[in-house]
Amino acid sequence: MAKGITSRKEDYSKWYQDIVKEASLAEHSAVRGCMVIKPTGYAIWENMRDQLDKMFKETGHVNAYFPLFIPKSYLSREAKHVEGFAKECAVITHHRLMNDPNGDGVIVDPSAKLEEELIVRPTSETIIWDTYKNWIQSYRDLPLLINQWANVVRWEMRTRLFLRTTEFLWQEGHTAHATKEEAAEEAEQMQRVYAQFAEEYMAMPVVKGIKSENERFAGAEETYTIEALMQDGKALQAGTSHFLGQNFAKAFDVKFMNQNNKEEYVWATSWGVSTRLMGALIMTHSDDAGLIIPPRLAPTQVVIVPVPKPKPEIDEAVNKLMTELKAKGISVKYDSDPKKRPGFKFAEHELRGIPVRVAIGMRDLDKGVMEIARRDTKEKAQIPVADVSSHIEQLLVDIQDNLFQRALAFRDEHITPANDFDEFKDILNNKGGFISAHWDGTAETELKIKELTKATIRCIPLDAKEEAGACILTGKPSNKRVLFAKAY
Amino acid sequence: MAKGITSRKEDYSKWYQDIVKEASLAEHSAVRGCMVIKPTGYAIWENMRDQLDKMFKETGHVNAYFPLFIPKSYLSREAKHVEGFAKECAVITHHRLMNDPNGDGVIVDPSAKLEEELIVRPTSETIIWDTYKNWIQSYRDLPLLINQWANVVRWEMRTRLFLRTTEFLWQEGHTAHATKEEAAEEAEQMQRVYAQFAEEYMAMPVVKGIKSENERFAGAEETYTIEALMQDGKALQAGTSHFLGQNFAKAFDVKFMNQNNKEEYVWATSWGVSTRLMGALIMTHSDDAGLIIPPRLAPTQVVIVPVPKPKPEIDEAVNKLMTELKAKGISVKYDSDPKKRPGFKFAEHELRGIPVRVAIGMRDLDKGVMEIARRDTKEKAQIPVADVSSHIEQLLVDIQDNLFQRALAFRDEHITPANDFDEFKDILNNKGGFISAHWDGTAETELKIKELTKATIRCIPLDAKEEAGACILTGKPSNKRVLFAKAY
Repeated sequence: MAKGITSRKEDYSKWYQDIVKEASLAEHSAVRGCMVIKPTGYAIWENMRDQLDKMFKETGHVNAYFPLFIPKSYLSREAKHVEGFAKECAVITHHRLMNDPNGDGVIVDPSAKLEEELIVRPTSETIIWDTYKNWIQSYRDLPLLINQWANVVRWEMRTRLFLRTTEFLWQEGHTAHATKEEAAEEAEQMQRVYAQFAEEYMAMPVVKGIKSENERFAGAEETYTIEALMQDGKALQAGTSHFLGQNFAKAFDVKFMNQNNKEEYVWATSWGVSTRLMGALIMTHSDDAGLIIPPRLAPTQVVIVPVPKPKPEIDEAVNKLMTELKAKGISVKYDSDPKKRPGFKFAEHELRGIPVRVAIGMRDLDKGVMEIARRDTKEKAQIPVADVSSHIEQLLVDIQDNLFQRALAFRDEHITPANDFDEFKDILNNKGGFISAHWDGTAETELKIKELTKATIRCIPLDAKEEAGACILTGKPSNKRVLFAKAY
Repeated sequence: MAKGITSRKEDYSKWYQDIVKEASLAEHSAVRGCMVIKPTGYAIWENMRDQLDKMFKETGHVNAYFPLFIPKSYLSREAKHVEGFAKECAVITHHRLMNDPNGDGVIVDPSAKLEEELIVRPTSETIIWDTYKNWIQSYRDLPLLINQWANVVRWEMRTRLFLRTTEFLWQEGHTAHATKEEAAEEAEQMQRVYAQFAEEYMAMPVVKGIKSENERFAGAEETYTIEALMQDGKALQAGTSHFLGQNFAKAFDVKFMNQNNKEEYVWATSWGVSTRLMGALIMTHSDDAGLIIPPRLAPTQVVIVPVPKPKPEIDEAVNKLMTELKAKGISVKYDSDPKKRPGFKFAEHELRGIPVRVAIGMRDLDKGVMEIARRDTKEKAQIPVADVSSHIEQLLVDIQDNLFQRALAFRDEHITPANDFDEFKDILNNKGGFISAHWDGTAETELKIKELTKATIRCIPLDAKEEAGACILTGKPSNKRVLFAKAY
């Protein structure tokens, strides 16, 4: 167990906090609920962002930027949306401070009250659909396939770094379409893009499904979700894509002339993932020794440590290796600080989750080998110098795959069918993970189950089989199993 | 003159607005003073951001993210800073809305008043130095070389798209150093980085200088600036880098143990450029036909138009050319829409500033040539098919260079010495541009000149020659000329 890190067994929640702190990923700021994303954490987020951005562009999307502020009245335009988002938010009421006549600080200038309060965006459907109104007249203006990278604010009472913070970073796609079918396909496509990103880059298996009405986005007609499972058996919603129907088009009066010269409301989607993915990444792979970062997202993929310290012969071998690795597009750092001992460095790099460590000492060089250690299994191997760069190239692929397979095996072991409510509660309390169970399809039953067990329906899997059954709580008929879990 | 675009001669300010609108770069939003950056405009900003980010990383900086909100009291900690920034800002006073008991909208929930108001960051020195306090204990923790890409808000009374908006996007570097010399060198280095970016990427010549006390950043001991000249003879401050001394370290009590085991306050810099650069880019190069984008920042560098429309033989030639261009790292689009005529497309691409246009018709192909038009000079040439891709590769370099040389010639023609105040006013009113004149070094004189003429000191050029002279207004002795101008 690494210094400063509580074991997962002892206290999973504390372990998570310790990893975030000791690996220097983020910290709480002086502003309640807002975090500081530290350079080490931000570099991982940048890699996620860049890869997602690439995938959005490959599917035809472009980026734009919309205002941080939303007029208060906009939130009320879509009835469900306001219920979901207007309640806990940052409200701007004034636009000026003045010197305190009774002190040496500043106070709000009462004469600078805004006519209408502004809300810091919790999500941007309203301001964006107000803008789209002017951009869309005809079917020729459609589809609009726009994404925005932005900060958003939702006033949270209980916050946890990355997982739930008052301000967070995210992307929000907002698309407009001429037909219902095209919008629905867009929402499904983005769910697939998110799933591909989660599995191929984060090495995090996800279940693709749709949300029950209770868990649907406020203002959506269907919410597509990807659900991941953390090592403590709790689920985490990792990304959602919403088919919004014509709700926002109607709320903001966005119509277009279709090919038959008839006026129609526009069809919409929105979809987003956030810095919450950082929390998911940490909790999917890391261990009691620290962070584990999948190679495809690691800012530094390989670190080289001289044993016991730099020396001309070692430096020469390092330079050669670094040149070879860089030529393969592998990011590598040489930790040549002569003041720190190798053991200290090993622990540090392990803690920070660097996928591959190379140790080079004179004795190794005399034997013509280098020591290669992989972070995921902590296995070490002596590799002939000439083979090291191609060995590492393959090793990074293997680590990426191993992390995914390991998480997949854990996840699959933790999808447990339950056929009555006692069994349901027993699995929930003693094993955790997803519970695959029948449900009568009503919001009432879902809420009752939540009240009794804290478990919610994470999703109705897209691949759920048709199967006659009885609701776990009410015994009423059901035709497919859904996945329940306690969730972040 | 392009449709929808006022000529520069007729009304420069209207011309600017027309370009921004007709080239689909940005528009005003429903929120006072906040803009929507449209996809076409955002793609240029992304290229600027990516290149700047690369240059920051090459000079050893890393990115991080700090909170959007700043507690009101933080602004008061640095006396000059609060004068400069606390006055016109967005103030958050509440964190909840509630249903209006007398209506169907939402109102601010009076019970959700914040104990201390929060300010939407106008710049982040205060929140960042409050954070650095916990990160810095010893000289071993220094330097901290951190940059943040973020949105900021300054409540502006009169706004202009890109040039002055209530919310804008920017980067802000905040560095911490053990010595005064190192911090001063960092501030100067970032001025050089900005100048290099402006000249090599934006093709926009700049004067490097320092600000007079009046124009200095609130809280800085020295402000380094790069100043550009727009086509209407007005100057534009394109980027600033501040040596902050120990002001913020003292305000936030950030001390470190130096190598001699003595406690000292930390030395600081901050530096930033913003979406204002988009305005500078537009106003430096564009003409009455529309936008002109320097090739190194153009999202699409080459557009190919079939004449009069697509045809298998043309498509085949286009595909071959596109493959060749992409292999050279050149971004290219084929505008194959059969419903629009070539003349319409030519005007459209000219308006949007695409550096190079290729027109391919059957008659050309029969002769074995393609028509290549450059946006900057509007010259056309018939180029043998086999030479087209290498011709374009060179042409992009030539256009980049020509834009810079053209802007440089204009700028150099518009640095005019003045030796008495009548001459000063005459140049200002009839020629515009920078006026190189002696000044007695006092804030009082600078303010008086501003009051009389609206011109301010843009900078004291780094390369200003020592020269005995008399202040243009007061006749008092001066030892170097400074640059005055009316400014954006």
